[in-house]
Amino acid sequence: MTTVETRAVVDLLGVLAYAELTAFDRLAEDARLAPTLAGRAALARMAAAEIGHHDRLVRRLVELGAEPSAVMAPFTRALDGFHEGTHPRTWLEGLVKAYVGDGLAADFYREIAGFLPEPDRSLILEVLADTGHADFAVREVRAAIAAQPTLAGRLALWGRRLVGEAISQSQAVIAERDELARLILAGTGDLTGIGRLVDRITAAHTERMRTLGLNP
Amino acid sequence: MTTVETRAVVDLLGVLAYAELTAFDRLAEDARLAPTLAGRAALARMAAAEIGHHDRLVRRLVELGAEPSAVMAPFTRALDGFHEGTHPRTWLEGLVKAYVGDGLAADFYREIAGFLPEPDRSLILEVLADTGHADFAVREVRAAIAAQPTLAGRLALWGRRLVGEAISQSQAVIAERDELARLILAGTGDLTGIGRLVDRITAAHTERMRTLGLNP
Repeated sequence: MTTVETRAVVDLLGVLAYAELTAFDRLAEDARLAPTLAGRAALARMAAAEIGHHDRLVRRLVELGAEPSAVMAPFTRALDGFHEGTHPRTWLEGLVKAYVGDGLAADFYREIAGFLPEPDRSLILEVLADTGHADFAVREVRAAIAAQPTLAGRLALWGRRLVGEAISQSQAVIAERDELARLILAGTGDLTGIGRLVDRITAAHTERMRTLGLNP
Repeated sequence: MTTVETRAVVDLLGVLAYAELTAFDRLAEDARLAPTLAGRAALARMAAAEIGHHDRLVRRLVELGAEPSAVMAPFTRALDGFHEGTHPRTWLEGLVKAYVGDGLAADFYREIAGFLPEPDRSLILEVLADTGHADFAVREVRAAIAAQPTLAGRLALWGRRLVGEAISQSQAVIAERDELARLILAGTGDLTGIGRLVDRITAAHTERMRTLGLNP
């Protein structure tokens, strides 16, 4: 790897490591909103899986000679800002956020990982693999909407708000990290390539909203 | 096992399963008080280990034909009450609670597990095994006191308050579950036996306070 490439890899591993730590926090917090002990344990279990991912990313950062805390630090503000700005008030909002928000973030990170050399590409794809949350969220949200169809409108609005916040925060992340921005530009080729990347992410998002039974 | 024994085993597995779920919650919450990202990840990792324990207990409950949520339900009030009554306000209070409070609870459950037949005795001893939290807490608390000796007095008071709350809540748990009370009485033999059990638990608690550098 060139130095610039290494820096971009370290940045991406760093933002992901911190993202997994905040995912843990958020799932642990949402677990307390669960209407049943089984739901609470299910979310706690998913939170635990995120910490396993965090540990793998941290180990790789150490292997690359990076100091994990220092590498994560530049991203704490943007990610904390996203979570503070999209604090779910209900169990269902938490599930929609986990499915729609994490799905969007994972798609974005996956696209960037595609530009990276091995073994980091595979590592990132593995830690982004779903930890069972998606199915669980879809099942619970669909069942809730089936029981009370008026929920759909409110949750759809919530889903759209999540996207808006996610976009503004990811722009903040990229703007602050030159190497990441260069990696994306080099990987996509040009502005048309970036446009196609955004189209793919948007299409996947629309699909996820429909899967939940929500108007995208 | 006799029916009474099975009921006592199920009760003990149930209270422990819920205790692990609350331990997860609490560690996840305390993680957010961590002064460093590394400390935050360390606590999140310990929280994740508790969920692994919870899952093992739940699997055993299912094996015994019990419905985990129903078995945990009678204990939620006492355990939630304990945690609400001893909400740490600082990172160090959280660590003292984890070390002193969890240590005390683990000793108590271990004593009861000694009265149980296999495989439940071993299962309980395994899930009660320390998840690395003890060493971590001792290191952090001792370092903090070394840097600021006046902390010791306040943290010692906190340690004593935890014991008081733990005793009153465990009495509430036992009072509500006849089979558990009978198991303890049968296991210890008589009131002298119960006295010795309390002495052992108290001695271990005193030792833990000293290890932290706190006046018991």
